[in-house]
Amino acid sequence: MTVSVVWETYFSERARMMKTSEIRKFFKLTERQDIISFAGGFPGADFFPTDSISNYLQKILKEQTTTALQYGPTEGQKDLRVYLADKMTREGIAYATEANILITSGSQQGLDLISRILLNPDDLVIVEEPGYVGGLGAINNYQGNHLPIPLDSKGICTDILEKKLVILSKQGKKPKFAYLVPNFQNPTGVTMSLLRREKMLHLAEKYDFLIVEDNPYGELRYEGYPFSALKSMDREGRVIYLGSFSKTFIPGIRVGWLMAEECFVEKLITAKQATDLCSNSLSQQLVYTCCVNGFIDNHVQSLVEKYRAKRDMMLFCMEKYFPAEISWTYPRGGFFIWVTLPETMSAESILLKALDRKVAFVNGAGFHTNGNGKNTARFSFSEASLEEISTGIERLGRIFQNEILAVENERLETRVL
Amino acid sequence: MTVSVVWETYFSERARMMKTSEIRKFFKLTERQDIISFAGGFPGADFFPTDSISNYLQKILKEQTTTALQYGPTEGQKDLRVYLADKMTREGIAYATEANILITSGSQQGLDLISRILLNPDDLVIVEEPGYVGGLGAINNYQGNHLPIPLDSKGICTDILEKKLVILSKQGKKPKFAYLVPNFQNPTGVTMSLLRREKMLHLAEKYDFLIVEDNPYGELRYEGYPFSALKSMDREGRVIYLGSFSKTFIPGIRVGWLMAEECFVEKLITAKQATDLCSNSLSQQLVYTCCVNGFIDNHVQSLVEKYRAKRDMMLFCMEKYFPAEISWTYPRGGFFIWVTLPETMSAESILLKALDRKVAFVNGAGFHTNGNGKNTARFSFSEASLEEISTGIERLGRIFQNEILAVENERLETRVL
Repeated sequence: MTVSVVWETYFSERARMMKTSEIRKFFKLTERQDIISFAGGFPGADFFPTDSISNYLQKILKEQTTTALQYGPTEGQKDLRVYLADKMTREGIAYATEANILITSGSQQGLDLISRILLNPDDLVIVEEPGYVGGLGAINNYQGNHLPIPLDSKGICTDILEKKLVILSKQGKKPKFAYLVPNFQNPTGVTMSLLRREKMLHLAEKYDFLIVEDNPYGELRYEGYPFSALKSMDREGRVIYLGSFSKTFIPGIRVGWLMAEECFVEKLITAKQATDLCSNSLSQQLVYTCCVNGFIDNHVQSLVEKYRAKRDMMLFCMEKYFPAEISWTYPRGGFFIWVTLPETMSAESILLKALDRKVAFVNGAGFHTNGNGKNTARFSFSEASLEEISTGIERLGRIFQNEILAVENERLETRVL
Repeated sequence: MTVSVVWETYFSERARMMKTSEIRKFFKLTERQDIISFAGGFPGADFFPTDSISNYLQKILKEQTTTALQYGPTEGQKDLRVYLADKMTREGIAYATEANILITSGSQQGLDLISRILLNPDDLVIVEEPGYVGGLGAINNYQGNHLPIPLDSKGICTDILEKKLVILSKQGKKPKFAYLVPNFQNPTGVTMSLLRREKMLHLAEKYDFLIVEDNPYGELRYEGYPFSALKSMDREGRVIYLGSFSKTFIPGIRVGWLMAEECFVEKLITAKQATDLCSNSLSQQLVYTCCVNGFIDNHVQSLVEKYRAKRDMMLFCMEKYFPAEISWTYPRGGFFIWVTLPETMSAESILLKALDRKVAFVNGAGFHTNGNGKNTARFSFSEASLEEISTGIERLGRIFQNEILAVENERLETRVL
């Protein structure tokens, strides 16, 4: 067939704005079997409770055939929604009934539907800088404009945000919502402090914007006490909360949920009808079964032990092998450590050298909206084994050392000349 | 929590335009257990090959754990894409490679992504009148304007379409694409003739619009020979083809696919990344396993026998019990028969009476974009058993008879007065 039509001429304005994340192009390189990868934000496949899943699926297919294999309600299966409403209430996140809960095909679908319902072209959305690529992408898909606010060790810098809000307010502008990952943030591993959470809510009320609180990692806490969810401090129903079973159970079955005011959930259901009719019935049945009998809660306990060991190993090896010029964050949970190199060093060029030595990470520029962060990198400890973490970080340590020596030599040579 | 924010004030323009389909409000009524339902377009749950699915899932979870439970590629699992490309080539739909195939979470997701990539607000989309609610909804979700073209027993009336295109062309306007269900259409059961297919392609080329060919029912053919797919006549790469496993296998696992030119598929992948990251891995693995070993092909053969019997039973009972004033279509495949009542009769008021007698169908107005079709109804024979079809159609026949008598009596009384 000879292609005659020029597809680009048919594209919508929003399609013309869409771009593939920088990060994706490196993923192809990191997917080779022989590479020790700290690149993907994937859960460790060796922790998947495969045998139990197999048994539960058999049981479900014996007892719940129709519910598990037929189309289901767009808003999700009632039992699971009721369970999640109770869970949200029990955990003090917010008092909820099933009417506040929408089951989504992974929480990424929640981000997509929220952006679709809220964003007109050029609407401003507050995002963390660096921030989660999937969140940035969902906003971009609906032509929202990112308003990047830097992150430090206590989360998004609310003081800087406030200054921007004052300026915007004088121009008669305001953001539509703030997209935040308050716990063990992707990509930095940082957790937002309680004070910042309170400040954020205060700013949202004062400057009248909504908050999307994305919490995929919150239950994977390796030390300390949890801070209150932004949703739990929500006096005016401004916060939309997103949860996921991708990290606490398995990602391939694509089950997440969203909690918000009922009238907003209803609008999301209308949008979801024309998006995928309904989420996967078998997946929902599996998740419900594994929730209600306590399996997932127990599984999370064991995951916490196992991921904590991986995190500790990576932090220990970084301390041991990385030169003093390199710094990194200390995550109390989740999957990620954020590494900062000297400003003159390019994480991308080091990544290419690392790939030659069969180790991978993700360079940090892709998590920025403005091309910043060229000297930063995200390290994920979730997938690699303890041995791989040790070997991989040691190799990278040598690459960093060599790079720093090379820069130093160049500086000395320049001086001699 | 006191809700203080007024959600509507934050909604996007597109969200303000979204409306829940008329049909959905009746679905709640028809879902009662004791009702004989011809309402839903669901496949028959008694035909689900549950035991085989259970066995295959066990096998997959033993042999393919990581692939089945981990995140997968946004575009879909490679094995399945290769299989579907071969299937498309083998069936003469179009020569395809995996680069032409995108796996979607049901073909509804394909409709959503296509609309997102192609539609600016107020773009025109040619739709069949009556047409599939999910297709109309996806277009509505992106503020596309429906250009409804009537359907007769040979499919969409290309002559009427041509006249509209001429008028539009004089105004300097053209539609972005045509959305068509050429085989055993939902809701009418009508199949588009070969001549109309050729004419449609000709019009698309002459007036420069794209075609979305949605074919969920094509393999469920109960008699006659298949007409060539529009995609197979596509000289310029204008046709986007949608396929689905929801009717030929099971719907609850949400696996569909899309075939189009590679550059368009690439754009769809970019949009899908921010939509759900990837489709369900376990579902894709299950479908692939059941495709490659011939299970689904054999299953389709047995489905054809079983659904043909249901269709024949419904047609036989309509002939036997429905009064002469009622007419209906003769579908050669799929799930649906379209019923037309005398113009003075309201399908909605008859539906309410039918529900009292514990039988349900869908009134036809919801499949129209303009409030027409109040005297039409969609009857689905896919879910009810043969006995239920017989009982249900007999009951409805009596309701129709009474209704026609009542109208006649009223007419006579009016004359006497």
